[in-house]
Amino acid sequence: MAEIGPNTRLRVSPFYDSTLAEGVTAFSPYNSMLMPVSYGDAPAEYDRLMNGVSMWDVGVQRQVEITGPDAARLVQTLSVRDLSACVVGQGKYVPMCDHRGVLINDPVVLKLAEDHFWLSIADNNILMWARAIAQERGMVATITEPDVSPLAIQGPKAEDLVASIFGDWVRDLKYFWFADAEIHGIPMKIARSGYSKQGGFELYLTDGSRGTGLWNIVREAGQPWGIGPGTPNPVERIESGLLSYGGDTDDLTNPFEVRLGRYVDLTLPDDVVGIKALRQIKAEGPKRHQLGIVLDDQPRQSGHAVWYDVLQNAEKVGSMTNGGWSPRKETVIGYGLVSTNLKIGDRVEVLRGGKLDAGTLTALPFY
Amino acid sequence: MAEIGPNTRLRVSPFYDSTLAEGVTAFSPYNSMLMPVSYGDAPAEYDRLMNGVSMWDVGVQRQVEITGPDAARLVQTLSVRDLSACVVGQGKYVPMCDHRGVLINDPVVLKLAEDHFWLSIADNNILMWARAIAQERGMVATITEPDVSPLAIQGPKAEDLVASIFGDWVRDLKYFWFADAEIHGIPMKIARSGYSKQGGFELYLTDGSRGTGLWNIVREAGQPWGIGPGTPNPVERIESGLLSYGGDTDDLTNPFEVRLGRYVDLTLPDDVVGIKALRQIKAEGPKRHQLGIVLDDQPRQSGHAVWYDVLQNAEKVGSMTNGGWSPRKETVIGYGLVSTNLKIGDRVEVLRGGKLDAGTLTALPFY
Repeated sequence: MAEIGPNTRLRVSPFYDSTLAEGVTAFSPYNSMLMPVSYGDAPAEYDRLMNGVSMWDVGVQRQVEITGPDAARLVQTLSVRDLSACVVGQGKYVPMCDHRGVLINDPVVLKLAEDHFWLSIADNNILMWARAIAQERGMVATITEPDVSPLAIQGPKAEDLVASIFGDWVRDLKYFWFADAEIHGIPMKIARSGYSKQGGFELYLTDGSRGTGLWNIVREAGQPWGIGPGTPNPVERIESGLLSYGGDTDDLTNPFEVRLGRYVDLTLPDDVVGIKALRQIKAEGPKRHQLGIVLDDQPRQSGHAVWYDVLQNAEKVGSMTNGGWSPRKETVIGYGLVSTNLKIGDRVEVLRGGKLDAGTLTALPFY
Repeated sequence: MAEIGPNTRLRVSPFYDSTLAEGVTAFSPYNSMLMPVSYGDAPAEYDRLMNGVSMWDVGVQRQVEITGPDAARLVQTLSVRDLSACVVGQGKYVPMCDHRGVLINDPVVLKLAEDHFWLSIADNNILMWARAIAQERGMVATITEPDVSPLAIQGPKAEDLVASIFGDWVRDLKYFWFADAEIHGIPMKIARSGYSKQGGFELYLTDGSRGTGLWNIVREAGQPWGIGPGTPNPVERIESGLLSYGGDTDDLTNPFEVRLGRYVDLTLPDDVVGIKALRQIKAEGPKRHQLGIVLDDQPRQSGHAVWYDVLQNAEKVGSMTNGGWSPRKETVIGYGLVSTNLKIGDRVEVLRGGKLDAGTLTALPFY
């Protein structure tokens, strides 16, 4: 480990000062910004998320804002999921692919108006990608990064907390839907969403100068529920079967390989980037698929930093992409991106730090 | 400051273990990898670069490899500099722009064969960009990230050191030219290049499994010249007038604003991405330009992490993009990206940490 701090190529979020005050201990870069990834007490952070409520600086989840007469057409061109039924106020989880059908992002697309969208993106330069496609096709759209920074509130007590601040109307928000809100003059959109399966909301702050103010309001209001800081949880998200674009995918991964096939509409027109390649991949059958891996009897340990080789009969059959010690499974679990020759129940070995650890392939999600 | 370490979205270079062994104290992300940015002794690192020889892990300087029948046409399409006179074995420093004429990278383009190029890139996803343009235009080219990781050897003693390892032929390499080499079976290309003005070479290692071996060979051979570890130097590069793409540029910066106009050939055909926009920008005259800033009598201090406002008569006239304490100027110097209404010799004020510091605009480079 070594130090990291902001620099002119590595921006901070509006919640940065608050995260320092809360005692953040580790960052990872994400969309050229600092993302908090630990506050130094993994069991407490997991417990808050599972049993109480946790607040996360996810300002790194940048928005690509697309407006103008061709905005809707451009967003569909970039999305391999059919968005024709998406209405204003609704969000959709959407795989985006390059011309090879390889996944380049999995944003939530928020429809703010018929000609106004946000792509709430994972870690990759989709701003530049969207501009390239729009310009090459002569589409009329304005594509920018607006001043929008999400603050996630996650956990079983999140709804009570958010309702206590903003009113009971938030209880009626459907999953991925969003609405305008304001508190003490701080403007935002509130969505029912977040990178966990424990329930919750994301407050899309739309004035970056008010980050500390919003953080403190949530922090204060959350005291009765024992709120504390957290981050996208490296173990809970695996237990819950959530994908990390770029963490669980490589430069060859298509959506079918990582359980996103149900979000791919192969009947979309040919001008959707990647759709022709995906039809061919589907016809030929994907070569890899994502399964769970449960290692035998592993003690509590840190998560891992590189993909590990997965072996069967001493031959490499895939990779363990991310994993960690699961409090619920009481051993190390993770994702296998493995040959479709392998199936649920198969025994495998994982090469970790020069040592082979035995485990079993399982269905996903774990919970 | 908080900790950073590798993760599955943040790769390490083949020299990572060596940099840990040398005592690296800080990293910055760059092209989704960890780039060493300090070994904890700034004066010694500066001194080695200025007076001796320094070795840098710049494996983050990824290559975008382009091959195939349309390779040359694609590389020119992406480059606003005329490459028609570039021959095999030669490299060229090349601004790349988006359709707005905004700088998106400034790689060295290495021509390995008539249909084989590397773009040795700064921090941005040019792999994805190049694929987008090629596919949208139906060009036949293969675009990949090969196993290539540069190790920079910089400083006035670099040539003697590199000649002692590889032979006196390296002394005949012209600036940005390169040639194949091998030592103890470790394959690489050697280029006369590097992100300093103190002279030196970059060893483009082409087998990532041999990073520690190559590091140790250079480290051992460099002992007579007092070699030690270093990083792209945050102060020497400013003294020398070198640009940091993404550090000194923003989402609106065109090449004319940051002294790259001499690398822009406006007579290139319209199909070069950005060239039409650049002709218009040139005709209208750029609104900003990059000048030096010398602050009055500043004590030794750390570099800075954000752009500072530059003021004249209490009005914002631009930004100080990067700066640091210069051992040669014995005060803080930096770059101003300021209105073209301002000129060399003007007095300005820089808002740093809530305080206005006076300074003078100067010509670049400082040395």
